[in-house]
Amino acid sequence: MKGFAMLKIGETGWIEKEKPQLGPNDALVQPLALSPCTSDVHTVWEGAIGDRHNMILGHEGCGVVAEVGSNVKDFKVGDRVMVAAITPDWNSVEAQEGFPMHSSGMLAGWKFSNFKDGVFGEYFHVNDADGNLAILPDSISPAEACMISDMVPTGFHGVELADVRFGDTVLVIGIGPVGLMAVRGAALRGASRILAVGTRPNSVEVAKKYGATDIISYKDGAIDAQVLELTNQKGVDRVIIAGGTVDTFAEAVRCLKPGGIIGNVNYLGGGEFIQIPRVEWGVGMGHKTIVGGLMPGGRARLEKLSSLVSSGKVDVSLMITHRFEGFEKVEDALYLMKEKPRDLIKPVVVL
Amino acid sequence: MKGFAMLKIGETGWIEKEKPQLGPNDALVQPLALSPCTSDVHTVWEGAIGDRHNMILGHEGCGVVAEVGSNVKDFKVGDRVMVAAITPDWNSVEAQEGFPMHSSGMLAGWKFSNFKDGVFGEYFHVNDADGNLAILPDSISPAEACMISDMVPTGFHGVELADVRFGDTVLVIGIGPVGLMAVRGAALRGASRILAVGTRPNSVEVAKKYGATDIISYKDGAIDAQVLELTNQKGVDRVIIAGGTVDTFAEAVRCLKPGGIIGNVNYLGGGEFIQIPRVEWGVGMGHKTIVGGLMPGGRARLEKLSSLVSSGKVDVSLMITHRFEGFEKVEDALYLMKEKPRDLIKPVVVL
Amino acid sequence: MKGFAMLKIGETGWIEKEKPQLGPNDALVQPLALSPCTSDVHTVWEGAIGDRHNMILGHEGCGVVAEVGSNVKDFKVGDRVMVAAITPDWNSVEAQEGFPMHSSGMLAGWKFSNFKDGVFGEYFHVNDADGNLAILPDSISPAEACMISDMVPTGFHGVELADVRFGDTVLVIGIGPVGLMAVRGAALRGASRILAVGTRPNSVEVAKKYGATDIISYKDGAIDAQVLELTNQKGVDRVIIAGGTVDTFAEAVRCLKPGGIIGNVNYLGGGEFIQIPRVEWGVGMGHKTIVGGLMPGGRARLEKLSSLVSSGKVDVSLMITHRFEGFEKVEDALYLMKEKPRDLIKPVVVL
Amino acid sequence: MKGFAMLKIGETGWIEKEKPQLGPNDALVQPLALSPCTSDVHTVWEGAIGDRHNMILGHEGCGVVAEVGSNVKDFKVGDRVMVAAITPDWNSVEAQEGFPMHSSGMLAGWKFSNFKDGVFGEYFHVNDADGNLAILPDSISPAEACMISDMVPTGFHGVELADVRFGDTVLVIGIGPVGLMAVRGAALRGASRILAVGTRPNSVEVAKKYGATDIISYKDGAIDAQVLELTNQKGVDRVIIAGGTVDTFAEAVRCLKPGGIIGNVNYLGGGEFIQIPRVEWGVGMGHKTIVGGLMPGGRARLEKLSSLVSSGKVDVSLMITHRFEGFEKVEDALYLMKEKPRDLIKPVVVL
Repeated sequence: MKGFAMLKIGETGWIEKEKPQLGPNDALVQPLALSPCTSDVHTVWEGAIGDRHNMILGHEGCGVVAEVGSNVKDFKVGDRVMVAAITPDWNSVEAQEGFPMHSSGMLAGWKFSNFKDGVFGEYFHVNDADGNLAILPDSISPAEACMISDMVPTGFHGVELADVRFGDTVLVIGIGPVGLMAVRGAALRGASRILAVGTRPNSVEVAKKYGATDIISYKDGAIDAQVLELTNQKGVDRVIIAGGTVDTFAEAVRCLKPGGIIGNVNYLGGGEFIQIPRVEWGVGMGHKTIVGGLMPGGRARLEKLSSLVSSGKVDVSLMITHRFEGFEKVEDALYLMKEKPRDLIKPVVVL
Repeated sequence: MKGFAMLKIGETGWIEKEKPQLGPNDALVQPLALSPCTSDVHTVWEGAIGDRHNMILGHEGCGVVAEVGSNVKDFKVGDRVMVAAITPDWNSVEAQEGFPMHSSGMLAGWKFSNFKDGVFGEYFHVNDADGNLAILPDSISPAEACMISDMVPTGFHGVELADVRFGDTVLVIGIGPVGLMAVRGAALRGASRILAVGTRPNSVEVAKKYGATDIISYKDGAIDAQVLELTNQKGVDRVIIAGGTVDTFAEAVRCLKPGGIIGNVNYLGGGEFIQIPRVEWGVGMGHKTIVGGLMPGGRARLEKLSSLVSSGKVDVSLMITHRFEGFEKVEDALYLMKEKPRDLIKPVVVL
Repeated sequence: MKGFAMLKIGETGWIEKEKPQLGPNDALVQPLALSPCTSDVHTVWEGAIGDRHNMILGHEGCGVVAEVGSNVKDFKVGDRVMVAAITPDWNSVEAQEGFPMHSSGMLAGWKFSNFKDGVFGEYFHVNDADGNLAILPDSISPAEACMISDMVPTGFHGVELADVRFGDTVLVIGIGPVGLMAVRGAALRGASRILAVGTRPNSVEVAKKYGATDIISYKDGAIDAQVLELTNQKGVDRVIIAGGTVDTFAEAVRCLKPGGIIGNVNYLGGGEFIQIPRVEWGVGMGHKTIVGGLMPGGRARLEKLSSLVSSGKVDVSLMITHRFEGFEKVEDALYLMKEKPRDLIKPVVVL
Repeated sequence: MKGFAMLKIGETGWIEKEKPQLGPNDALVQPLALSPCTSDVHTVWEGAIGDRHNMILGHEGCGVVAEVGSNVKDFKVGDRVMVAAITPDWNSVEAQEGFPMHSSGMLAGWKFSNFKDGVFGEYFHVNDADGNLAILPDSISPAEACMISDMVPTGFHGVELADVRFGDTVLVIGIGPVGLMAVRGAALRGASRILAVGTRPNSVEVAKKYGATDIISYKDGAIDAQVLELTNQKGVDRVIIAGGTVDTFAEAVRCLKPGGIIGNVNYLGGGEFIQIPRVEWGVGMGHKTIVGGLMPGGRARLEKLSSLVSSGKVDVSLMITHRFEGFEKVEDALYLMKEKPRDLIKPVVVL
């Protein structure tokens, strides 16, 4: 089968590979739609996960079941299915303890285009199919389903980590697609006020549609100073970090109320340390919780979050700014993601 | 009235002051026993909370109610009472939201020898008496009650912040009196294995009595390396930080499992930043929660925690290594705390 | 001062009383708007809380501060304020443990027209003013503020008790004003599907505007049978009970998934027992949690929930079907509530 | 292979069956020790789970791995293993949502001697072996390991459901082996006072060793009246129900504080309804949570709970009052359980 792959750090290309072998719990899926992610760009051109050779890229997509292992009970050939970017081993100690994304090691629930070939192939392999697939309802298009692979569950995980409550004032740092979903999730979780940090006009417009009440540009000065001014020096109840660097945390701590929570879902690509300012962190005793986490993945979550899309509560189509047709356009889509033109939020390739 | 005070940074002495004025919700208490805290040493000789002049020191003690405000319902003159080091304003938004220790500002629930005179006087003032006093049961001696002012509730708050569960492996960094109480609290919360970091023989012996299963010396190398070796490279489920510096957190993160929690109750006196190692923190996505907090204070908590002392589940007397008699010995006790002889855990002055 | 009172069970009338005396933490408020509650009807004509004589009725309203006690810090004469129906003693053990509504005894946080005169007077008394008042923002009208006294916080407490999560299917039983607010709260908390039980056309229409996706009439058969049919025999994740009787719980248990929660905010006026069907409750082991609770009250909550109103996320005006002008119209409003014409949701009296 | 079976309701006997077939995720285990449970008695002589024919009994035991499916990664032939009575399907939606015991239907995680043959055979079958087995450490004897199958995890689940906190007063109703483990779990979770209801002298003695501070006999009158007297009319913070009938809940509600929790782990064999007294339940608003649940099962939990046994914090040997040797003694052990002599807590058969 054909696949679009990372040949080595800095180089991509089309390759030919054997169709993946199936274990008894696994499934083989033929894609209906695919979407590249910023992580794919980091993987190829920044060597974010280290060197990989001839590894098929991609972890966002949906498709049709082409084959199932002998032990798969709930899915059959021909089923249209969603799949999350993170596909844990459910029969593991870590999943039992509530952290499936770290099954078999920290972050090891991330398998696509990391520990095995990704979804940008004529077929892709899904482990623990009963736990990692979900039926794609007719009310959701394949393009929309791609957003449910990673953008929706990751953005919403930021909201879960930050534990947004009724009437909270929430700061969302970064309004790329994950940050936009964090905005939508915070709005759907009952926040009263959502301050979103970003500058790209398209993203700003969508952020407002999703529920952002205030837009902050990092170009206008330190985020914490702006937030404190906008909140009458009170600061915010919650921060969701969906962009920035290791230095973003210090700004977040400075404008967070005592008792508040910072939930990070941003991949931190560089820097040795995240720096927490001692004094503003209450000399160690301000109850400002800091946590970051990879999204959980899994069928239960796919079903729950997709029900928000099919019921119209989350309109993911607002994020799809560029559409391509045909498998081979995956290459163009990835390069578009790399170039990141100013009007881009997410590209999707429909097969 | 007479009180033992910080005259200015670096200088202490006995002073004469007016008896404190009572508001309608307040009480005046005459001490039965008092104990100096490491914080008192930091306050005087390190200027930890900034300059203060002629401020009576001390926040650990118990006593007899000498006077009550017109609005106090549950306590009367002559009642023997416990009081916590932290005395929040209970009629505040912050208390309603679950963070009484930050009522009227971050850490502002800490009033004794910070925003007002402390307990080392012939009388001391207690705000919101109905919410901040608790009856001292006959089964608890005044000396023991001093341990319930700060050491018990602070050490146990570390256990609460870290959310220790049945069967957990817990690392407690620091086995001064707060760390010892964190060890006891972790044992009482169902931990299976408790690794305690410390070197002073007296403290080590008490740590073992309280439930520590492994003792680690920071003199034998980095804590994280020792912990990983002792746990078969698996790391620990929870870390309670009750000693060390801003640099301690990096060691804690390195030996914490994904999904684990670090609960800090150590006052961080210096350093601009706490540094969180990016890679071991799962590049932002390892679900290693970091939180630190001042203990809550309050009557409900005093009643609950003291019931563990009176039922024999927490033997605080093991921590009291030095006993003095007579009010004027508060000075000797503080200077003992400053010198910190190798066999000292806590001194107590019984009046 | 004048007040509209329950003279005895079954009888109401206007009475003359002394203005309430203020303690140091209290405030006196002059009403701007008032609203009768179904509870007032139960109190007078069903003797729900037992006999009371010449007790001024009412617990929903807002007003202007007319006088403050010596110890009140955050409010002054002339402030326009909101107040919740439940006004706890914040300086109590129960409040410290997270249950202010039960301060000084189960349900004893409910003071207005229960343990003291209610708000239907020329003035009303508010205990613990700093903790029980909140500034009424200009963006909220006095009529709307009346909805924030009880309907919003009670309906939303149902959502909190039931712990509604992203993508949940939620059953709301009863769509009087509390049930309507439960519908709105469930929608704002991220429910995908909300099945609401009710028949009055006005309420049904508003329920849909608030986010109900399915309307069920108890006239069409047992609720559980209808719910199971609508959910493909799967049942619901959460149930909020905001109407019905002690028998409603059995229906709720029968259509609740294992692991689900029933949150009750309905006052149960009669019947000796709530009956939980043994088999459908998993012979004791189905993890179907049952909890009911009086709403918490308090300033923090008033500020949070009113921010949802002022930000436009909760349009309480949809519930106000009848408006009166002038203090003396409180009587008409109460009798309207008693008669309960088919188009009534809530009446409000603006002074 | 040979097995001791329920032939039909009311009749037991030895039968010959084929060795179980293994799926790719399964294992076959040869028992080292076995223990009958009260549930086995209910199953056979009360028809508790309906009629079953020639079904091998038993769900408490440990053994040696005799065979593994092709997909099993963490266990190999010859490993000595523990296994819980509940063996969920981990690759299921319910497990992902935190309720593995209800995977594939309410209570359907209970498979042994319910939906398939139990452990009283020469071999027994374990589904999802990687998730349902755990290595038996050398420090735990096979007899002790039998207690970790059901008594420990069920009793401790009661403590988890009731969410026991530091300093709580806890009522444990029933001190059969599950209730005894609830006592031990409550003590290990930081309860100050544990009131245990029971009369059998052996059980009473062990309950005290496990941490019970007060013993109540139901023969001395209603439990709630006794509890209220012992607690100065305050009632208890938490109730764990580990014995009794559907009527036990009313007593529990009557002596539970507002804000308290009732956690049930008792199988309710008869009665149409659990009856919750309306008034003492706060007319629906007293925040008295009622929940009951089957224990979770699974390897993570086996590892955590067994670490409490191997570290000496839970001495399960106190419960083993009767010991047998040889497989064929399973019959005697079950009949002993049926007769329930006054000195019996648990019998174990070592092979």
